[in-house]
Amino acid sequence: MDSVKDLITPAPILLQPPQAKIAACLRQHGPLSRTDIADITGYSRSTITTVVNELTDAGILEEIGDGESSGGRRPRVVSFRPDFGYIIAVDMGATGLDLAIADFNAAMLERVSLPIDVRDGAAPILGLIHRLAIDLLEHNGIPPEKIYAFGIGVPGPVDFAAGILNSPPIMPGWDAYPIRAFFRTAFPNAVVIVDNDVNMMALGELAAGSGRRHENFIFVKVGTGIGCGIVARGEIYRGSTGSAGDIGHICADKNGPMCHCGNIGCLEAIAAGPAIAHRAAEAALAGRSQILKKYYEQCGGQLTAVEVGRAAAEGDKVANEIVRDSGYIIGEVLAGLVNFFNPSLILIGGGVSHIGLLFLSSIRSGILTRSLPLSTRHLRIDTSVLAQDAGLIGATALALTNVFSEER
Amino acid sequence: MDSVKDLITPAPILLQPPQAKIAACLRQHGPLSRTDIADITGYSRSTITTVVNELTDAGILEEIGDGESSGGRRPRVVSFRPDFGYIIAVDMGATGLDLAIADFNAAMLERVSLPIDVRDGAAPILGLIHRLAIDLLEHNGIPPEKIYAFGIGVPGPVDFAAGILNSPPIMPGWDAYPIRAFFRTAFPNAVVIVDNDVNMMALGELAAGSGRRHENFIFVKVGTGIGCGIVARGEIYRGSTGSAGDIGHICADKNGPMCHCGNIGCLEAIAAGPAIAHRAAEAALAGRSQILKKYYEQCGGQLTAVEVGRAAAEGDKVANEIVRDSGYIIGEVLAGLVNFFNPSLILIGGGVSHIGLLFLSSIRSGILTRSLPLSTRHLRIDTSVLAQDAGLIGATALALTNVFSEER
Repeated sequence: MDSVKDLITPAPILLQPPQAKIAACLRQHGPLSRTDIADITGYSRSTITTVVNELTDAGILEEIGDGESSGGRRPRVVSFRPDFGYIIAVDMGATGLDLAIADFNAAMLERVSLPIDVRDGAAPILGLIHRLAIDLLEHNGIPPEKIYAFGIGVPGPVDFAAGILNSPPIMPGWDAYPIRAFFRTAFPNAVVIVDNDVNMMALGELAAGSGRRHENFIFVKVGTGIGCGIVARGEIYRGSTGSAGDIGHICADKNGPMCHCGNIGCLEAIAAGPAIAHRAAEAALAGRSQILKKYYEQCGGQLTAVEVGRAAAEGDKVANEIVRDSGYIIGEVLAGLVNFFNPSLILIGGGVSHIGLLFLSSIRSGILTRSLPLSTRHLRIDTSVLAQDAGLIGATALALTNVFSEER
Repeated sequence: MDSVKDLITPAPILLQPPQAKIAACLRQHGPLSRTDIADITGYSRSTITTVVNELTDAGILEEIGDGESSGGRRPRVVSFRPDFGYIIAVDMGATGLDLAIADFNAAMLERVSLPIDVRDGAAPILGLIHRLAIDLLEHNGIPPEKIYAFGIGVPGPVDFAAGILNSPPIMPGWDAYPIRAFFRTAFPNAVVIVDNDVNMMALGELAAGSGRRHENFIFVKVGTGIGCGIVARGEIYRGSTGSAGDIGHICADKNGPMCHCGNIGCLEAIAAGPAIAHRAAEAALAGRSQILKKYYEQCGGQLTAVEVGRAAAEGDKVANEIVRDSGYIIGEVLAGLVNFFNPSLILIGGGVSHIGLLFLSSIRSGILTRSLPLSTRHLRIDTSVLAQDAGLIGATALALTNVFSEER
């Protein structure tokens, strides 16, 4: 991510070029023996010894345990010291927030979740994040000066280089808000990295999930809206103005319902959580499903996709039909993207992805029916294994890759 | 394109790492002063002097003319020697073939075009290419040993690393045919680079056309079929199995006609050249357009999109409607890809792109109506300026970047 790093200021810790390269190598590959580092970086053994010693003296690296070996004495491996510094990761959705502290090896120390309304505006929500972070730090005995990076995923298009939101449709008051500056006083040594929430989830899968062995994949979040994170050649692809992956308003049915964006038949107007709930409420009110009617009454007329999933699990025919239709139409739109992008993996995440196995199988069916056989021969389609943690893990990984930068 | 180069064997000329880096720098940026080379590569002046002298002695580089300077004496610039070696570029379509010889500075020396039928199979067509190339070399007094690379664009999905076609739907007999081996005897010093024809066109625009100042763009070819080449972060994106950009079979209308692929409403079944000609023939036969009827009779019932374009230019209402519908529906499908990929440029090429300005304006209209405003605010949509030469220029550029490789 060299090109990206150049754009982000300030990187809190400056290293000499070989130090920075070896740190980046360990960040990418995890703990390595000195021999592995030599193979990957091309540096001589003596350079590696010097640099590893310097970084160990600085408290950044340590030698630990035994690495794997094909025979003979097992070599020791070089790793980051977990307590060298800490990271705050935030996954902000429209209606909820997750926040975690992670150590310098990306291990999550503690996490909290709470409901929010992102429409409350930037200052109140960032203030809340600030208080939550300070509480968590105190609870873990970590001084704010030891926070070297702050990774935040937000539900809107981001100008990644500037670290600001770019005309986010569902976040009034956040446009161009100086998120980095907000945290400068409280966390003086932290670089603040802002990215789109779904990009963070894709990064999480790339760093520690099913995306690890895939160069080109798509992470689709189905919730209140529908969006995707794109990994191309092993890196997040953000597009020319940061709005890549905004697939919720692709036309899925020219004869479909009107979307809040003003267009007809947008994917999310047909297949996202609210559309699923809306169809279920109609069926309940029309007396077409006793089970949906029961849930409709239980929740005082405020059905969500969760209840529709429960009704489907109880064998309700109408609920199953709604889930199947929603999955299939998402699959049909993804089929077009498969022809265009030819990924080797599609991961489905977000709240609605937990609605039942029928949802995933209907997405698969929509994709396979409408894609070219050549593009699907080696295509895996699955649900996200990291689930609720994908965004936090991605924000942690992205934050950690931005702690060091190279002296020039 | 480092990752790509590693996969291509053999690179005909091995260089020491600094030689290879300076050659790659000149290939990417064009003629440069020694100061520019120092700024870009980070090498010391003395290393650059040594390496430039070595490469000049080897006949690869030369110092020419005067570079631009902001003041004082103008510095001389370092450039490739045009006669160090030569390149053969081929742009193969389903029904026609272009072949060119270019010098080591990518200047085209001579080009020929001729009709072919790609369904004749690999050996006859490659034999024809071989004879054409030999004729052109003789005509220009160039011995076959001076051909260092051979770039071929083909109308089907390509396994780029292996240099073979991958189950091409319209090229019977070409699947996995060893194209590289075919040319080994005749051109013993040439690396043979095979890529999809539309990728070559996108590469041409990237190297010498409108794509030069764009990191992320799409080149759409509208002809007998519809496909696109994708440039992401300044490099061709081929997807996980080489079929990225295969957009002709994205569903454009669920109530549309059946496609030869067996699916319903594929974009190319509605909007490519044959579909345009088919609609025009229907109108001619039904007596709905006298002008189309005239052309229909003139060409003995074999209308193509070219005649439809002429009829539209003569003011024929039905022909204009057909052109407008075709452009608009292509635009609607591209709108979805704009939301997903967020490019800064879309270039329209291929035979049908010359059908008239209404075609481009209808594509624009379809894109702008159905894309998110955020994704189109900085989006340029235009026809390819390189037109028929895009594929040859791209094949030349790709061939030239693969002549040298680094000794390890």
